[in-house]
Amino acid sequence: MPTDDTVSPADHALRARYGDQDARWRGPWNDTIATMIAHRSVRRFAEGDVDDDTLSALIAAAQSASTSSNLQSWSVVAVRDGERKRQLRELAADQSFIEQAPVVLVWLADFSRAQQLADAAGVPLAAAELVESTIVGVVDAALAAQNALVAAESLGLGGVYIGAMRNRPDEVAELLGLPARTFAVFGLAVGHPDPADRAGVKPRLPQAAVLHHERYDASRVGALLDTHEQAQDAYNATQGRHVSWRQAVLRRLSDYSNLSGRERLRSSLERRGLPSR
Amino acid sequence: MPTDDTVSPADHALRARYGDQDARWRGPWNDTIATMIAHRSVRRFAEGDVDDDTLSALIAAAQSASTSSNLQSWSVVAVRDGERKRQLRELAADQSFIEQAPVVLVWLADFSRAQQLADAAGVPLAAAELVESTIVGVVDAALAAQNALVAAESLGLGGVYIGAMRNRPDEVAELLGLPARTFAVFGLAVGHPDPADRAGVKPRLPQAAVLHHERYDASRVGALLDTHEQAQDAYNATQGRHVSWRQAVLRRLSDYSNLSGRERLRSSLERRGLPSR
Repeated sequence: MPTDDTVSPADHALRARYGDQDARWRGPWNDTIATMIAHRSVRRFAEGDVDDDTLSALIAAAQSASTSSNLQSWSVVAVRDGERKRQLRELAADQSFIEQAPVVLVWLADFSRAQQLADAAGVPLAAAELVESTIVGVVDAALAAQNALVAAESLGLGGVYIGAMRNRPDEVAELLGLPARTFAVFGLAVGHPDPADRAGVKPRLPQAAVLHHERYDASRVGALLDTHEQAQDAYNATQGRHVSWRQAVLRRLSDYSNLSGRERLRSSLERRGLPSR
Repeated sequence: MPTDDTVSPADHALRARYGDQDARWRGPWNDTIATMIAHRSVRRFAEGDVDDDTLSALIAAAQSASTSSNLQSWSVVAVRDGERKRQLRELAADQSFIEQAPVVLVWLADFSRAQQLADAAGVPLAAAELVESTIVGVVDAALAAQNALVAAESLGLGGVYIGAMRNRPDEVAELLGLPARTFAVFGLAVGHPDPADRAGVKPRLPQAAVLHHERYDASRVGALLDTHEQAQDAYNATQGRHVSWRQAVLRRLSDYSNLSGRERLRSSLERRGLPSR
């Protein structure tokens, strides 16, 4: 329990994260944790490249993440060419930051290397066709990408994930020359944050809504969703946005009308050699 | 190009990461990146708890990760109770570290909160049944978990992911009281590393095998797989292990015989309300 009214940098960071002006940070604190808590998605980039040594550092961080059974079932394609970024933008909901960012990293679930090993050994790769393997590839890619993004943020860079890379997966695969047994899970635009960007730290659900002890406790979730709705409304007001969190969630999940083609992802996975049985 | 023979801490870390004694770190370096590059999975824990304030810090870091469309489609169950850890161990390939770790975090893809919102609004949640949504939940859970693990490692703690949480998913759901529209993607055992543990930094594929520029270049992968095989063999020799990386990959993926039940994951996802269509 704090004995005075001093608000530490950690308290400030936590308050923004949860949209809760009474929050107090009680755990340990360091630069790494500070970087994470301060995360915001950057969709407006200033001039300035991400050079090869920096990119190599981000990918070394990515490769250092855990990987299921050391399969290393992921790869990444770094796109810097203006024309190719323009095409990626077109395939991914026409989001302008895709062209603006100096580099767009497209993260793949990748069993094509395992397929090479299987071909050389003259054995099948039957387990690659299971939903278990799709999940392994997606998890591997996500753990790797998150290390890359946190590493970038620790260097003062910023970025945003691009789920719309799954809107037209066959065309993304064609554009990037992806082999069989791979698919693009998401993109990640990385660059120097535009100092004029007003986007802030987006509030998250109260911790008690996502952290359960020993067993899942759904009973308290309802009230916490209301608390979160208010925190989101307050944040949205600073950004001139008028769709509530609840509305946004339901607009996305009630039916297939706002999925921009992602309702057909399964058939694309089949064509990519990852039928997810 | 280095002008002298001084080997920096960054060089040392990179050499261990790639099993390459000539590697030189050329990018920017800081504590966050150092923490990531030094990652190793910890499967032997010393005495010592992970207290509530520390756990809360790890989960705040997790919640700070990006989440698709701000859906926040994940949750986590923290298991500390000895008997429940024993049962989790039994369900997850009898791995002793599950019981030894002071806390096991079970990360869920979670559309049950969205289902609550849909029920309250009297609308369906049709899109939750798509493989797109399963992937969204898996990515959200993985980004969150990776932040938690890196935060833990930045504090001197260690951990290991537990993919075997998918071996018997229905029983895991029963044990943890998971609601419909959720499933356990993986576990993460966290605790204080046993100083006597000899497990080291596991070498990864050469960066050129996973990082492609502009388009996927499969032509050079074959030779790089051989390079990696040698690095892994050298590491395995330090650990008294005699199965090559190639053999391990094919043993896992050639057929269903080494999947410990994960070949049935799809039917479990259907029962959990996430049929992944």
